[in-house]
Amino acid sequence: MGNQNPSFILESKGKVKFEDRPVPEIKDQDPHDVIVEVKFTGICGSDIHYWQEGHIGHYIVEAPMVLGHESAGVVHSVGSAVTTVKPGDEVAMEPGIPCRRCVRCKEGRYNLCPDMAFAATPPIDGTLARYYTLPEDFCYKLPSHVSLEEGALVEPASVAVHVCRQGDIKPGDSVVVFGAGPVGLLCCSVAKAWGATKVIAVDINDERLEFAKKYAATAVFRSQKESAKDSAKRLLSETNLGGGADVIIDASGAEICIQTSIHALRTGGTYVQAGMGKDEIVWPISAMGTKELNVKGSFRYSEGDYRLAVELISTGRISVKELITGKVKFEEAEQAFHDVKAAKGIKTLIMGPTA
Amino acid sequence: MGNQNPSFILESKGKVKFEDRPVPEIKDQDPHDVIVEVKFTGICGSDIHYWQEGHIGHYIVEAPMVLGHESAGVVHSVGSAVTTVKPGDEVAMEPGIPCRRCVRCKEGRYNLCPDMAFAATPPIDGTLARYYTLPEDFCYKLPSHVSLEEGALVEPASVAVHVCRQGDIKPGDSVVVFGAGPVGLLCCSVAKAWGATKVIAVDINDERLEFAKKYAATAVFRSQKESAKDSAKRLLSETNLGGGADVIIDASGAEICIQTSIHALRTGGTYVQAGMGKDEIVWPISAMGTKELNVKGSFRYSEGDYRLAVELISTGRISVKELITGKVKFEEAEQAFHDVKAAKGIKTLIMGPTA
Amino acid sequence: MGNQNPSFILESKGKVKFEDRPVPEIKDQDPHDVIVEVKFTGICGSDIHYWQEGHIGHYIVEAPMVLGHESAGVVHSVGSAVTTVKPGDEVAMEPGIPCRRCVRCKEGRYNLCPDMAFAATPPIDGTLARYYTLPEDFCYKLPSHVSLEEGALVEPASVAVHVCRQGDIKPGDSVVVFGAGPVGLLCCSVAKAWGATKVIAVDINDERLEFAKKYAATAVFRSQKESAKDSAKRLLSETNLGGGADVIIDASGAEICIQTSIHALRTGGTYVQAGMGKDEIVWPISAMGTKELNVKGSFRYSEGDYRLAVELISTGRISVKELITGKVKFEEAEQAFHDVKAAKGIKTLIMGPTA
Amino acid sequence: MGNQNPSFILESKGKVKFEDRPVPEIKDQDPHDVIVEVKFTGICGSDIHYWQEGHIGHYIVEAPMVLGHESAGVVHSVGSAVTTVKPGDEVAMEPGIPCRRCVRCKEGRYNLCPDMAFAATPPIDGTLARYYTLPEDFCYKLPSHVSLEEGALVEPASVAVHVCRQGDIKPGDSVVVFGAGPVGLLCCSVAKAWGATKVIAVDINDERLEFAKKYAATAVFRSQKESAKDSAKRLLSETNLGGGADVIIDASGAEICIQTSIHALRTGGTYVQAGMGKDEIVWPISAMGTKELNVKGSFRYSEGDYRLAVELISTGRISVKELITGKVKFEEAEQAFHDVKAAKGIKTLIMGPTA
Repeated sequence: MGNQNPSFILESKGKVKFEDRPVPEIKDQDPHDVIVEVKFTGICGSDIHYWQEGHIGHYIVEAPMVLGHESAGVVHSVGSAVTTVKPGDEVAMEPGIPCRRCVRCKEGRYNLCPDMAFAATPPIDGTLARYYTLPEDFCYKLPSHVSLEEGALVEPASVAVHVCRQGDIKPGDSVVVFGAGPVGLLCCSVAKAWGATKVIAVDINDERLEFAKKYAATAVFRSQKESAKDSAKRLLSETNLGGGADVIIDASGAEICIQTSIHALRTGGTYVQAGMGKDEIVWPISAMGTKELNVKGSFRYSEGDYRLAVELISTGRISVKELITGKVKFEEAEQAFHDVKAAKGIKTLIMGPTA
Repeated sequence: MGNQNPSFILESKGKVKFEDRPVPEIKDQDPHDVIVEVKFTGICGSDIHYWQEGHIGHYIVEAPMVLGHESAGVVHSVGSAVTTVKPGDEVAMEPGIPCRRCVRCKEGRYNLCPDMAFAATPPIDGTLARYYTLPEDFCYKLPSHVSLEEGALVEPASVAVHVCRQGDIKPGDSVVVFGAGPVGLLCCSVAKAWGATKVIAVDINDERLEFAKKYAATAVFRSQKESAKDSAKRLLSETNLGGGADVIIDASGAEICIQTSIHALRTGGTYVQAGMGKDEIVWPISAMGTKELNVKGSFRYSEGDYRLAVELISTGRISVKELITGKVKFEEAEQAFHDVKAAKGIKTLIMGPTA
Repeated sequence: MGNQNPSFILESKGKVKFEDRPVPEIKDQDPHDVIVEVKFTGICGSDIHYWQEGHIGHYIVEAPMVLGHESAGVVHSVGSAVTTVKPGDEVAMEPGIPCRRCVRCKEGRYNLCPDMAFAATPPIDGTLARYYTLPEDFCYKLPSHVSLEEGALVEPASVAVHVCRQGDIKPGDSVVVFGAGPVGLLCCSVAKAWGATKVIAVDINDERLEFAKKYAATAVFRSQKESAKDSAKRLLSETNLGGGADVIIDASGAEICIQTSIHALRTGGTYVQAGMGKDEIVWPISAMGTKELNVKGSFRYSEGDYRLAVELISTGRISVKELITGKVKFEEAEQAFHDVKAAKGIKTLIMGPTA
Repeated sequence: MGNQNPSFILESKGKVKFEDRPVPEIKDQDPHDVIVEVKFTGICGSDIHYWQEGHIGHYIVEAPMVLGHESAGVVHSVGSAVTTVKPGDEVAMEPGIPCRRCVRCKEGRYNLCPDMAFAATPPIDGTLARYYTLPEDFCYKLPSHVSLEEGALVEPASVAVHVCRQGDIKPGDSVVVFGAGPVGLLCCSVAKAWGATKVIAVDINDERLEFAKKYAATAVFRSQKESAKDSAKRLLSETNLGGGADVIIDASGAEICIQTSIHALRTGGTYVQAGMGKDEIVWPISAMGTKELNVKGSFRYSEGDYRLAVELISTGRISVKELITGKVKFEEAEQAFHDVKAAKGIKTLIMGPTA
C-alpha cells in the first residue's frame, strides 16, 4: 500500500532486484524540491562496476542501493518555492547534490564537494525508479524539440563538457581524444562545438573509429601494439599534427594511451584525464616537466556544464541521438547491464516503469 | 694574442680544461648586444650532469663547450642601439636567448622556444669565461645595494619565481615544497613573498630542514621510509594542513616525494614539477583524476621572471645572501664542481678570471 | 518581556532610535545557524548614506531597519548541525547571505547573487543589536591573538581583498590607490601583502597621506587642481612609474581621480572601481580602448575574501589596529554616525549593548 | 628605371597621388624577410580618417605615406633564412611588425608594443603598392581553396578574433554586437564560431540588420531614439536575454550604444570596446561597479589572431566572401576611398597594380 515507486536495486555485489519503495514526498523544509517521474536512464561504466565489484575505490555498497544516474523525466510535483519548472515539464536530471556550504561549493567547483550526495554512489539511491527527488536548480528544462531520450544523454554530454572545460579548449586548437566510447565520442563532438579545428579520435577498434569519423572526428588514428613514443610519433605524422597536439583527452583509461598522450602533446599543451583505469601507472614525468605541460583531472560536472550540454544539444551543435543504440523496458533493466558489460552498442537506455 | 678571454671548458664527459678564447666583439647586425665581464657564476645540478655524464636527455656534449649559466657581471661594452645599460653597470645575466619569432616566443612563453640558445646547453657556450655576449633585454641592472654575488643568485631565484608562477600561488595558500636544496629553498621564500601563509619544507636531511626553517619555511616535515599515502597522511596531520595543501612543489625529483605530493593535495589543488629525476615514475593517476588536480611542468624561466627575481631581492622580500656558502677563484673552478657534486654547502660561486 | 535584544534602528531618513527587539532563536530548518552576540561594529559610508538619504540607488528604506554590517562578536548559541564554531568562540561576521542556488552563487561569485540578504541593506536588518543570526560558514573564528576590535575590521579588509583580487595584483606590480580613507588604506596594505613592490597612495589631504605612508604606501602623491592628463603625467613622473602603473584602484569615487587613473595606466594595465560616487561620469574611452586596459567593478566580497582577510590580519601581513581611531558605547551609536559623517578619525567602532 | 613599384600615397590631408617607388630588396641583416606582391587590399575607417583628417590621435601624417594595410598577395622573393613560405605562395599579410624585445612583446601582447611599425600608420608606409616587405612569420599561407580576395579579409577577421578573445567568449554565451559594419559582422560570425549560442546584432540600419541575420546573427535588434536604459530594457526583452547578456561588443563607437551595453549586461558580464568614436563619453560607472563588470579595450591583433582567422575561414567556420561588395583597379584607388567614405557596400577591395 502506498508503495508505488518500483525501483531497480543493487542488493550486494552481483545481486540486483526490483522492489516497490515508498513514493517520495516533498518536505516542508525543502520547498525548492521537485519530484520527477523518471522516463529514460542510461547505463555507464560506473553502474556496471558497482554491480560487478560492489565498490569503486572507497565507495562500497554496504546496503541495498537503487542504481542509475543518467536520467531524464517529467516533473510530477513541485515544492512551494519552485518557480522554474512545473508539473508536466520535461527535464534532464543532474544527479549529484552538493552541500552548497563548503569552500569548494562556494568557490564554484561543487563537483569537488566532500559532502556531495550523488545518485547511485553509496549510500545514495540512484534514479532507476519511478520517482526521483531533486532541487529545482538541478532540473534542466528540455525544449520541446529535444526528446526525453536525448535528455538522458545530457549526463554523459555534461561529462564531456566538463572535460573540454578542464582542457581549456580554444578555437583553432588541435584536440586528440583517446577512446571512442560514449564519453570519448561526446568529447570529440563538444571539442568541435568549442571551435577545435582538428579533432582526432583514437581507438583500437575499427568500427568505433568509423563511427567516430561519421559522428564528429575530423580524422581518426588506429592505435597498435608499439611503444608509447612510437605511437606518439606515428600519430603526429599520420594526422599532420606537426610538433604536437594542443590538447589531448584520455577517455580510455588505458596506460599506453595515457603515456602516448604525454609524448604527443606540444610544449605547453594540455592533457585531461577523463577515463578511469588503474590506480597507478608508469608516467613520463620528465617529458611532462620539460614540455611544461598542463595536466588536469576531470571529475563529473559542475556549474554550467549541464546547462551548456542542454544548450549544445538543443541548438544542434552536438548530436546525441545516434549514440542511443538500444532501449529496454524497466523490467528488463538487468539485461541492459549485461549488454553494456558485453559492450553491445554505444548507449542503452532503460525506460521508466510503466504506469 | 688577441686572446684574453679565459674560459672553463668541458672538453668531453669528465674532462675539463681552461682555454684562452678570443674576446667577443659586437657585430653590426646585433646592435642591441652587450658584452658583460662575468664576475660571479653559480654551479647547479645540470652543470654537474654535463660534466659527469656528457649529456642531459638528448642534449649531448659533442664538442668542447664553455660551462656555466648562473652569472652576474659588469657591462664591458654595448652595441649602438643599446639604451638600457651602459659600461660599468652591474647586471644579472639571463642566459637563454630565444628566437623571438616562433609561436611560443610570440605568445609569451619563450622558455619553450625550440630554437632557444641556452648557455652551457650543447652546443651553446656558457658563461664561465671573462666575457659573455647578451642582448640588452637579457641584462638586468642590479641596484647599487644588491651585490654581484647576489646577482649570480638571480638565476636560481628566477627558476623559483617561474615555479611559483606555474603553481599560481595565491595569497593565503598553503604550499608544501619537497626538497630543501637551493631551488627548493628559493621556492619556499618566493612562495612566502607571493603571500602564501603556510610554507612547509620537506626533506630527509635535518640540517637542511633547520636551515629551511630559519630561512623561509613556516614549518618543516621530515620524510621517512614509509608509503606515499602514509607519508601524505603524516604530513597533513603534523603540519595541520587539514584536507590537503593548496599547492605542492616538488624540487627533489624523487619518486616517493612526487607520489606523496599527489596524495597530500586537496581536491582541486595544484602540483608543480620543479625537480629533475627519473624519466618515468609510478604515478597515482586515479587520485589525480578524482581530486581534479592541476599538474604543471616548469621549465627554466620566461618573460618577467628574471625582472621579478631582481625586484624581490632588491626590495628584501626574498634574501639570497645566506645561500652562498662558498666562493672559489676562477682558476679553481674544477674544485667548485667537485664540491657541488659532494653536496658541500648550498651554493658555491666561481669568481670571474682576474684581470 | 522576552525582549532583550537592544537594537539601533533607522526608522526613516534621518531618524534613528533604539528598540528592544525579540531575542532571535535558531529554527529547526536552519540547523547550520549560529547566534552571535555582537561586540564591535564599524560604521561605513553606506550606513551614513542610508541614515542621511534613506536610500542607496534602488535600495530604499521603507520600514524601520537595524543598521550596521561591520561586526565581530562571540558565539552565543549554535544549531544542531554546526561543527565549526561553538559558544564562546570569537568570530568575524560576514554580513551577506546569498541564496546558494542561483548561477552566480554556484559559479563562485555569490556577491552577485540577486537574492542576497545583506545586513542593513533594505529590507534586511543589520548587526547593531545584541544578537545576530548567521549560518556557520559566514562566521570566521578569530585566533586568540586577534582581538574582537580587529575582528570588526575584517569587513573593510575583505572589501580590500576583493578589490585586489579583481585587480589581479601580481608580485612585482606597481599599484596606485586613489583615496586614503579606510578602504583605500586597506587596499594599499593588502596590495603590498599580495607582493606589489610599488604602492602609491593618492589623496588631497596631507594628513591622510602622511598616515598612508606610515601605514602601507611605499610612496604618496598629492593631487591638485589640474587636468586628468596633467595629473597623470605628474603622478608617473613624481613616483617613477615610467610608462604607467600596472594596476590602479579608485577608492575615492571622484570623477577626476577616475579619469586620471585611466591616463596613468600602462598599456594592458588594470583598473578597479572600488569607490562609489556619481552614477555617470565623463570617461576617456579612447585611451581605455587603445591601451587595451582591463577595467573591473568590485562589489562587496565573495568566497575566500573574508577567510583571507582574517589570515592576513592574524599572520601580521596586514595590520588593522591603527585604523581604529574611536570607540563609543552602544547607547552613543548616533554620535558615531555624526562623527563618521564629519570625517573624524579613520574608523569608529560601536560597542555591543552592555549586558 | 629601377622604379617599378607603383604606390598609392597620401601626400597630406586630403591629397593623394600615385608614385613609382623603388622596388624593395631583402637586406642581408634581415634574412627572414619576404617580399610580397600585393594582390588585394581592403579599405577601412582608419585609412579614410588619415585621408580626410591627416591624423588619428597623435599619429600625424607629416610626410607622404603609402596607404593601405588589409592585404593579401603572392610571395615574390624570400630571404636566405626563410623556411615557411616560398615564391609563388599566396599569403595573408599581417601589417604590423613589433620590436620583439620589449616587455609587452615578450609577455605575448605584441599589439601593445610601443615600437610597433604598423602599415599606413605614420610614418610607416602601407601596402597599397606593388611590393611589400614582411618577416616570414607575418605571412600566413592561404590554403588553395581560399582566394586572395578572401585573404585580404583576414585583416578585419583578425580584428574580430582579437575582440572575441578579449571578450573571453565561451560556448553557450549570449553575445550582443552593436554596429553591423564589417568588423561588427565579423564579430558576430567569430562569436558564433567560438560557441556563442545567442548572437544579437544591433544597428539603426534595417538593411544591415537583414544582412546580419542572413550572415551570422541569431537575432537582431533595431536601436531607436530612446534613453540607454530604455534601449537596454527593450533589447533584453525583445531578444529574450533575461537578466542581461554575457558579453557585449561595441563595434559602433557610438556613445548611446556604449551606454546601452553597460545597462544590458548581466552582473559579472564582459564588455569589449571594438569601435572607435569620441575620445570621451558619459559612462555609467555606477552600473559598471555594482554589476562587477569586466570592461576591456581591444587593439588590433596579437599572436595567434591572424593564424586563427585564416583557420576559421579555411575550415568554413566563418565566411568572408559575402562581405566583399566591390573591387576596383589599383589605378582607381581614390574612387574606392570615396565609396567607403560614402558607406557604399560593406567592403571594397583595391586590386594590385597590373604588371
